[in-house]
Amino acid sequence: MTTSNNREVDPEIRAELGRLRESIDNIDAAVVHMLAERFKCTQQVGHLKAAHQLPPADPGREAQQIARLRRLAESANLDPAFAEKLLNFIIAEVIRHHERIADDAVNGGKPPVN
Amino acid sequence: MTTSNNREVDPEIRAELGRLRESIDNIDAAVVHMLAERFKCTQQVGHLKAAHQLPPADPGREAQQIARLRRLAESANLDPAFAEKLLNFIIAEVIRHHERIADDAVNGGKPPVN
Repeated sequence: MTTSNNREVDPEIRAELGRLRESIDNIDAAVVHMLAERFKCTQQVGHLKAAHQLPPADPGREAQQIARLRRLAESANLDPAFAEKLLNFIIAEVIRHHERIADDAVNGGKPPVN
Repeated sequence: MTTSNNREVDPEIRAELGRLRESIDNIDAAVVHMLAERFKCTQQVGHLKAAHQLPPADPGREAQQIARLRRLAESANLDPAFAEKLLNFIIAEVIRHHERIADDAVNGGKPPVN
């Protein structure tokens, strides 16, 4: 593949690239804020689960979420396999949070002995 | 950790869990649609890059995106390390798309010979 640096790029192409990148940056800011809100919800779920001795992971719920997101992705013309991998990535982080909350509830915030 | 099934859970707790999960599902639908829009933008970037022989990856741009998203994440009370990992995950998918578009431009959609 030919490589090229910015000095060789037509100013019109550069402007078009800049316009697209501004949209990408706006979307990324929106996604970061949506995910911040999502983690606020899952933190509350984590505290509820810890207070009522419910397990941090819930395979039935996760299977439903994945099936639903795959359908949504397909209707939005997004690769369903990518949407599933992304949700699994987020859920893994959420489970880590839930485990930490549950450990804190058991150990009063102190690290577990073993 | 004690495990518990839904039958043992207080109906009020179940209702609260259901309420939080509805919010999580709404947010996930929003994120899927934001990402579908993001891939529409990056597909356009991919076509521009392929048409003008620009490399699929752009390390300078990616470093800027990561630094910006880490700042945004911090201000939104989201773990910046998580935001960075997530962006890297999305960028890896985008670069795969760009490479495919560039290959198609060179090979007219036919698989490369070697």
